[in-house]
Amino acid sequence: MTEYLQLATCDYPEHVPADRPAIYAEQQRELGLTYVRLAEFAWSRMEPRPGEFEWAWLDEAIDAYQRGGMQVVLCTPTPTPPAWLIRAHPEILPYDEQGRVREFGSRRHYDFASPIYREHSRRITRAIAERYGEHPAVVGWQTDNEWACHNTGRSYGGASAAAFPAWLEAKYGSLEQLNTAWGNVFWSMEYTDWAQVKPPILLVTEPNPSHVLDYYRFCSSLIASFQAEQIAILRERSPGRFVTHNFMIFESGFDHYEVAKGLDFVSWDNYPTGMLEFFAPSGQSDDIKTHFARTGHPDLIGFNHDLYRGMLKGQEGLGRQGAGTPSGPWVMEQQCGQVNWAPFNPLPARGAVQLWTAQAWAHGVDVVSYFRWRAATMAQEVMHSGLLRHDETPDRGYEEVKALKLSDFPLGEVPAKVALLHDYDSLWLYDAQKHSASMSYWTQTVTYYMALRSLGLDVDILHPDADLSGYKVVVAPALTLISAEQARQFSALAASGTRLVFGPRTAFRTPGGETWSEGQFGPMSDLIGAKLLQYDSLRPGLTQSVKYGEGTFAATDWAESYRLSGARALASYAGGPLDTQAAVIRKGHVTVIGAHQQELIGTVLSEILMNVGISVETLPDGVRLSRRAGKTLLQNWNPHPVKWQGRLLAPVSFTVLDA
Amino acid sequence: MTEYLQLATCDYPEHVPADRPAIYAEQQRELGLTYVRLAEFAWSRMEPRPGEFEWAWLDEAIDAYQRGGMQVVLCTPTPTPPAWLIRAHPEILPYDEQGRVREFGSRRHYDFASPIYREHSRRITRAIAERYGEHPAVVGWQTDNEWACHNTGRSYGGASAAAFPAWLEAKYGSLEQLNTAWGNVFWSMEYTDWAQVKPPILLVTEPNPSHVLDYYRFCSSLIASFQAEQIAILRERSPGRFVTHNFMIFESGFDHYEVAKGLDFVSWDNYPTGMLEFFAPSGQSDDIKTHFARTGHPDLIGFNHDLYRGMLKGQEGLGRQGAGTPSGPWVMEQQCGQVNWAPFNPLPARGAVQLWTAQAWAHGVDVVSYFRWRAATMAQEVMHSGLLRHDETPDRGYEEVKALKLSDFPLGEVPAKVALLHDYDSLWLYDAQKHSASMSYWTQTVTYYMALRSLGLDVDILHPDADLSGYKVVVAPALTLISAEQARQFSALAASGTRLVFGPRTAFRTPGGETWSEGQFGPMSDLIGAKLLQYDSLRPGLTQSVKYGEGTFAATDWAESYRLSGARALASYAGGPLDTQAAVIRKGHVTVIGAHQQELIGTVLSEILMNVGISVETLPDGVRLSRRAGKTLLQNWNPHPVKWQGRLLAPVSFTVLDA
Amino acid sequence: MTEYLQLATCDYPEHVPADRPAIYAEQQRELGLTYVRLAEFAWSRMEPRPGEFEWAWLDEAIDAYQRGGMQVVLCTPTPTPPAWLIRAHPEILPYDEQGRVREFGSRRHYDFASPIYREHSRRITRAIAERYGEHPAVVGWQTDNEWACHNTGRSYGGASAAAFPAWLEAKYGSLEQLNTAWGNVFWSMEYTDWAQVKPPILLVTEPNPSHVLDYYRFCSSLIASFQAEQIAILRERSPGRFVTHNFMIFESGFDHYEVAKGLDFVSWDNYPTGMLEFFAPSGQSDDIKTHFARTGHPDLIGFNHDLYRGMLKGQEGLGRQGAGTPSGPWVMEQQCGQVNWAPFNPLPARGAVQLWTAQAWAHGVDVVSYFRWRAATMAQEVMHSGLLRHDETPDRGYEEVKALKLSDFPLGEVPAKVALLHDYDSLWLYDAQKHSASMSYWTQTVTYYMALRSLGLDVDILHPDADLSGYKVVVAPALTLISAEQARQFSALAASGTRLVFGPRTAFRTPGGETWSEGQFGPMSDLIGAKLLQYDSLRPGLTQSVKYGEGTFAATDWAESYRLSGARALASYAGGPLDTQAAVIRKGHVTVIGAHQQELIGTVLSEILMNVGISVETLPDGVRLSRRAGKTLLQNWNPHPVKWQGRLLAPVSFTVLDA
Ligand SMILES: [Zn+2]
Ligand SMILES: [Zn+2]
Ligand SMILES: [Zn+2]
Repeated sequence: MTEYLQLATCDYPEHVPADRPAIYAEQQRELGLTYVRLAEFAWSRMEPRPGEFEWAWLDEAIDAYQRGGMQVVLCTPTPTPPAWLIRAHPEILPYDEQGRVREFGSRRHYDFASPIYREHSRRITRAIAERYGEHPAVVGWQTDNEWACHNTGRSYGGASAAAFPAWLEAKYGSLEQLNTAWGNVFWSMEYTDWAQVKPPILLVTEPNPSHVLDYYRFCSSLIASFQAEQIAILRERSPGRFVTHNFMIFESGFDHYEVAKGLDFVSWDNYPTGMLEFFAPSGQSDDIKTHFARTGHPDLIGFNHDLYRGMLKGQEGLGRQGAGTPSGPWVMEQQCGQVNWAPFNPLPARGAVQLWTAQAWAHGVDVVSYFRWRAATMAQEVMHSGLLRHDETPDRGYEEVKALKLSDFPLGEVPAKVALLHDYDSLWLYDAQKHSASMSYWTQTVTYYMALRSLGLDVDILHPDADLSGYKVVVAPALTLISAEQARQFSALAASGTRLVFGPRTAFRTPGGETWSEGQFGPMSDLIGAKLLQYDSLRPGLTQSVKYGEGTFAATDWAESYRLSGARALASYAGGPLDTQAAVIRKGHVTVIGAHQQELIGTVLSEILMNVGISVETLPDGVRLSRRAGKTLLQNWNPHPVKWQGRLLAPVSFTVLDA
Repeated sequence: MTEYLQLATCDYPEHVPADRPAIYAEQQRELGLTYVRLAEFAWSRMEPRPGEFEWAWLDEAIDAYQRGGMQVVLCTPTPTPPAWLIRAHPEILPYDEQGRVREFGSRRHYDFASPIYREHSRRITRAIAERYGEHPAVVGWQTDNEWACHNTGRSYGGASAAAFPAWLEAKYGSLEQLNTAWGNVFWSMEYTDWAQVKPPILLVTEPNPSHVLDYYRFCSSLIASFQAEQIAILRERSPGRFVTHNFMIFESGFDHYEVAKGLDFVSWDNYPTGMLEFFAPSGQSDDIKTHFARTGHPDLIGFNHDLYRGMLKGQEGLGRQGAGTPSGPWVMEQQCGQVNWAPFNPLPARGAVQLWTAQAWAHGVDVVSYFRWRAATMAQEVMHSGLLRHDETPDRGYEEVKALKLSDFPLGEVPAKVALLHDYDSLWLYDAQKHSASMSYWTQTVTYYMALRSLGLDVDILHPDADLSGYKVVVAPALTLISAEQARQFSALAASGTRLVFGPRTAFRTPGGETWSEGQFGPMSDLIGAKLLQYDSLRPGLTQSVKYGEGTFAATDWAESYRLSGARALASYAGGPLDTQAAVIRKGHVTVIGAHQQELIGTVLSEILMNVGISVETLPDGVRLSRRAGKTLLQNWNPHPVKWQGRLLAPVSFTVLDA
Repeated sequence: MTEYLQLATCDYPEHVPADRPAIYAEQQRELGLTYVRLAEFAWSRMEPRPGEFEWAWLDEAIDAYQRGGMQVVLCTPTPTPPAWLIRAHPEILPYDEQGRVREFGSRRHYDFASPIYREHSRRITRAIAERYGEHPAVVGWQTDNEWACHNTGRSYGGASAAAFPAWLEAKYGSLEQLNTAWGNVFWSMEYTDWAQVKPPILLVTEPNPSHVLDYYRFCSSLIASFQAEQIAILRERSPGRFVTHNFMIFESGFDHYEVAKGLDFVSWDNYPTGMLEFFAPSGQSDDIKTHFARTGHPDLIGFNHDLYRGMLKGQEGLGRQGAGTPSGPWVMEQQCGQVNWAPFNPLPARGAVQLWTAQAWAHGVDVVSYFRWRAATMAQEVMHSGLLRHDETPDRGYEEVKALKLSDFPLGEVPAKVALLHDYDSLWLYDAQKHSASMSYWTQTVTYYMALRSLGLDVDILHPDADLSGYKVVVAPALTLISAEQARQFSALAASGTRLVFGPRTAFRTPGGETWSEGQFGPMSDLIGAKLLQYDSLRPGLTQSVKYGEGTFAATDWAESYRLSGARALASYAGGPLDTQAAVIRKGHVTVIGAHQQELIGTVLSEILMNVGISVETLPDGVRLSRRAGKTLLQNWNPHPVKWQGRLLAPVSFTVLDA
């Protein structure tokens, strides 16, 4: 039996009168929704005072949703420890990068390292899991909410600061090892006692990047173990239900591959207009932001879909534990009207909610859950829309959801032939020393993704350690940190016939955060057949010409050149300090593109793809193709119609094509 | 007997040799000045050491001014507690929004909630009032100086933080009430003990707007009671003298209507060039700032005059207690050369000091007091001008004041037929959740004021609870918070024939800071005959067309549309997500303008005004008309001449016309 | 025997395997280098644990350099106190302007006032001086490294805050004197106890400029005495060696004239591209930054050369104590590839390293030391280039150094006929009250320097108290603080025939930071024959026309006018509030230029120079002339060729001409 995309919503029975869940459940079912997510911030209602639980309201709400035909996803309410807990144990509070306590009064006000909070996290998880773990309406769980949102992935004092030395000792064994690994001889930063090491903040000038890298790894490990404790309890007390987490947009606060382990599948929260205003990598100009203000940018959204679809791929010992629900990734929160948290919060275009839903499906999402059912009438999010308005009338998103035909969206595989590699260690190290204020790991990585999507390709985004054997082309835009073991894997992959494409700064740094003493490309020098010659950080207004075939491209932000030792130059710089030096090089199956320029990247990739028999299609701006389960989703994200291949594509619209 | 505008100055005998007051007084009298304000920062000279008072210098100075024919306004010196007091009681110091103590070394370094400071405030007020309360030269008092200047309206820690829970308990009675009123169920922010509540700072993400709103109200009440203590002492020990306070420009740090209660009249400090650089609402472009750099913008100044003129209007039990001095508002500090505190401090244009003085008169001011007599030769304000230069020679402002003919400026009524409504609760709530980074309460409100002034109208600015029965047209640009009682008053007003005009976001929020659960316009839905359909936050570059009659207007920053239930659409949106939806609506006497665009607002207002028989006059940019006591002040604020109605208006000039 | 420019490098044996120094020394010698600087950050290797010294690695390194033919400059390692010292004595840590402790983990994390750190500074200085003071390879010493780098010139809490009152007491004797000197009567800031005085931070609004000025002087005196302690020890234990310090670029954190006293000669660290991005005075536009992105701006670099060349000039009791090494200023660190610490770090143009070296020579530098030998492979500076790359291959700078012909660069005098005056007290006071956000002391001063350099002149930059008797023209661009004694010296100088040229704001302020009560020009009024009439702070977009002869100039940022009492107007303002007022005035040999406009300044200077027989040459943008030892260095700093006087100057190139 073919399965199709399913729909859901996030609802808050604690925010409305007790008679509402029954009414809402019926309306939700009528609208075609299957699931409702509940209770991720409801701790103060579950446990109003220490140890006094009140479940009646939630019992009744869940029963009402069940009677209405809805299935329930429950959450652990740990993003919002109540006032009574925080004031009794203020040491739970986290510290910001300025060394200040982050206070109670909003959400996510806890330090993952706090032993006291760990205990309470387990306690409340156990309580809710015992109460509802085997409730027939409950099909799955979400842990906490949006790890690291509002820069809460790292606390820079208190419990985290206290726990850091022991983590280092466990990792390095001796101070000598630590000092060597971090290069602490530089500026006499050598430690003689574990307790001397603190978080890398409030320093006189920039911190040691190795110090930063390990602090980020340490903080990431805290989130992983915090979640693992909740998963273990949920597995035990709620058999047969899935456990997932709703991850964020372009979030850099932890290693998502590490934290996702142990989940059944991954979910994420998709806010296309806010993403463009607030989370967009630095490469997006103000013109682009205005052009796509009412839809978001298709590739920024698509990148996140592809990232989360691939997050658990190739990880052994994982997979779906629950039953009866879709096992693919969910969009756990899908914007269905204006958001409230960006500097500007424009109204979505007509058709945008449908387009977002269709795109999510085409990029491999099995369930789309709209945030939120009814717009909140109180507190921080009153200006965020829902499917219903404050007055409970259907808002525009509701009408668009109602008009969706789910049978257009069969589940199935996304047939990506190209993999794009992504790694948080490289992200952290790159951004710790950007060298060019207009560049970042995300900017560099997303530029390659956009080049691929502009060619009409489906893309799998994967960790470099994933199984890459099935791909004809693997693109690694910004892996600045590559281990010797990873270098060996790349060699094997190239030997097997896979085409590898690398961006600038590749293999510049060691896993410890130093540079390879043999220089870039460190352990990949043989494979690539070259070494670094120069790199150049280009201020706005300064460009560096690259000649490639008949074309001339003006690189911005970054340009690097190479000394060849086996590779040949496909393109060279012209004029400027890099004049005549190699800009794009190739040895065998391996290509390196040293200049930052999207059209150049697209041209180089295009030739490689055609050489291995992958057909490419140069798409107009804002037009995109995505494929799933034998269908092709043709999308126009522009606010104006576009003529393309004899079709007239309406503004902000899509068509599902067979094949 | 006709009274005329009077002039004054601010002088600082403590800054100059002891022989100066006698010389200065004579010069001041010759220049035509009547009053001199003294001693608002002189505490360390009045009481150099705890309990040791030294009055001789001030006795002699006051006597010198008296002999010279000047009348004296004295101040309580509480804006500057001396070092000995602060170091003995550091708990007096206030906290900033970053949670840091604000240190001694400039001014206004105290927390209004400090019981110790309250005691010392009463003590020094009593001492100075006893000494000079019945001195024949002393005609009145100023309390402290510029409440809230430098963001001192609110302290975010220390004494204020300690006093906040008790204020809440007094207001709400029970924690249940508090939690409900603030919607604390959202994000589990519910309190179980009054002491758990802190100021809304250093949170992980944005605070609950209800929390913010009550903290602002609490802080405002502290200023009100702080001043009330001083007023009570002054009334008792200085009978027959007036008590006023010099308020600030576009200050949002407290509810001015609440704090002004108990004063005889209101004064304010008018710094037109600094205002434009530093305090101008966000709607003023850089081009406007350059064009009016040497005069300030006429409407930004006029707005403040009209605001303070109307501040005590319609408040029962108030009015002049003193005798023999003008009872209208004063400009207590009037810029008369360059200021020193804005990023740029251009020299005023020739004629600007005269123009400012004439405008003040025409907007209802009875006394203009120039700041300051002689430019300071020491400390923070050496680069601020005075009537005299550092070397005691007359500066340009002096020459302009000398050339004024006061008989051109008879006192009397400002014949405003239009009221514009203004309220600090709405201001606070609007700005707590702007939703569009380029919008604010002041920007929205001032845009309506400018539209009215561009039509040649005089405007009364009033609190929504004032008696509005005399006005043919009442404009409420940004009352986002409206109570059910206020809604009833608006209904009665409309029923009586008054035309009401509302801007966007009107009646969106409850007095507690939530949204009306029946949606905008809450309790005003019947009166307006419509409900909110959509609102749209427009990023720079994004506009929304509005068709009104033959015209098309491009709304910026904000656009909202309505579902009609009794009202009819006067204008509709064209294109974009609001296409065909109602933009301007009317039911009976009530009009709502949903789009932000000054020309559209002017056009709609113009028609309404003509319909009720108020004649309008479309004025060129920078040309303004103001009327008082049967005269009309025709002003050209442009740095170039303007031809208008057959007259050639010189740059930066005015003419007083009869009628 | 003619001496020539010598070359050097900075090397870090502690960062590399023990076999490297021997190899490197040989390579350095081959490259033509004479000196190697060592060990400024190596404390944790010299003394890994309290009191346990390990010298073997440094003994071996120094011996290796000696064997290789290199001479060694050693450093006191005090910029980087090790973790064991900081954690044992956290009171050593400095405080930032936000009142926060600046933490261990990078460098310069100490408070100059800490008695404990003073003791350890002397202890480690003594230890290293005893070990190597008479080593035959060691020719000289550098104290610490880059005083005040990363805003460490001032600590705003802790030890410095504790020591400030005693410094004030020593200076003023009584609190009455202090209160009078600072004008503390203003805003009741009077102190009744020395301990009440704190650093001028975290105030409610701006601090008293006199308070700021004295805090800056106090902090400067701490650096001077900190260094003096090291110098005394080095003189005692390392006889015959020179002692220098490597100063920074446009550093304002202390009085360099005070701190330089006691050194044999001055050195500085020259980073032309980073300087332009990061340290350039505010007058440099983005276009200029892009144009000179790969070379830096010739005059910004030249200014620093000339500043440091003149730093010890005219100071009695000083001079070279060592022997056998050049006694002129050194560039102790010379950029030789990209830097890593500016927002953008472009690659230098081809030829830039040679051009920088030649320019340094022409401006009086005797030794240029390239930073650094090999690019660091660890920690904060991995992205900073060296002469060798990470992989130890020669980088582009190496090749350029190799091609230098040192015999082109004979040592000798720079024949400057014009002196430009510079003073840190004026800098501090000016910038404490800029009055115009786009202006600063450096901007004003550098504008005059650029005007002189555009005319082809060599310039000595000197303290106002230096012996100025040899100069035909003395230019004082921004001496806003002038003492009565200095006024007398200027009078004597003018009487002797020297032409004096002053910029705006001259002699506006007293040495205490007040204004002269007789107004600008205070004690110089007679000499100048005028008093201030008005000053005007011009926002961007606002200009003020000046008519001078046939020319019209549009002043930006600042314009001031004068009342004449002996002087005559050479130029007047036209239009605007200063219309017809005097803009440029002259009495006898003294000229004052009141308007900020580089071409106007150049025109006025040009006429004065020609009048006294100094020939001027109007140079194209980016072309510069510098003279030394009978040679002329003709430079083209543009990235394109320039035709000039029949020559075609290649991009980024120089020629050494005879005469
Ligand atoms: Zn990884
Ligand atoms: Zn109110
Ligand atoms: Zn000096």
